[in-house]
Amino acid sequence: MAADDPLFRPATADFRWHGVEVLAYKQDGAAPFRDITRQVLFHDPELKCELRYFEMAAGGYSTLERHQHMHGVTIYRGQGSCLLGTQVLAVKTGDLVTIPPWTWHQFKADLDQPMGFLCMVNVDRDRPVLPSDAEMAELRRNPAIAKFLES
Amino acid sequence: MAADDPLFRPATADFRWHGVEVLAYKQDGAAPFRDITRQVLFHDPELKCELRYFEMAAGGYSTLERHQHMHGVTIYRGQGSCLLGTQVLAVKTGDLVTIPPWTWHQFKADLDQPMGFLCMVNVDRDRPVLPSDAEMAELRRNPAIAKFLES
Repeated sequence: MAADDPLFRPATADFRWHGVEVLAYKQDGAAPFRDITRQVLFHDPELKCELRYFEMAAGGYSTLERHQHMHGVTIYRGQGSCLLGTQVLAVKTGDLVTIPPWTWHQFKADLDQPMGFLCMVNVDRDRPVLPSDAEMAELRRNPAIAKFLES
Repeated sequence: MAADDPLFRPATADFRWHGVEVLAYKQDGAAPFRDITRQVLFHDPELKCELRYFEMAAGGYSTLERHQHMHGVTIYRGQGSCLLGTQVLAVKTGDLVTIPPWTWHQFKADLDQPMGFLCMVNVDRDRPVLPSDAEMAELRRNPAIAKFLES
């Protein structure tokens, strides 16, 4: 039950864990994002997926991107909104969001509170792709998405 | 955002989800367990792991078992205790428990409240093995484990 037991990592206050490092969201600074951190909760050679916890401060957001690999997302803290393909969803703690292959997605915390989510993903996966200018223009043609992108 | 959207499954009250069925813990009635349900949150041909939510009523417990495959467990609701190899851990919401290959494990809710946990596991995996009488006797030789087993 010690904090240095790699098999048991107790939660601490404020959505952190003993023995789990708070990391930069991405190594690649070219992708746009704001006020978001990454913690890797489970990663092991015996497991074919990873479970990560991403947390955005109030007003923070993840990168708008897509890729071949899927995400299984569980909102774990707070509330906010999510672009999922051509939908904009209001999401809250506990909600489940499935992100299929090649589906544009982005998470945004509400302006008044942080939002965090668990994300299950295959360990072997492709790199995300950012929208081109033409793809962004196409997304903005949907009024709900335009509003989401400007929020 | 409808309840029948398979990509967005909102949480409802009391740790249930729209579009997620509450299942029997196991199909095999030969393994001992008490007052525990199973909900499969993510299972998809594109994902190499599943994420399941298991919930025990107050005083309920999972099967004492072991297997080759690993579990990545996140306590999601309540508190209780957990046998992990030769340790008995007190666990609470948010805590992370890693169950390595061939490690005896069992979860028990406290007597006064339910406990639920998320469990990430490879889709392709072996079947659990129950302890033999000799293995149970060996486990009971550890006083902490004996106390846990009798609780």
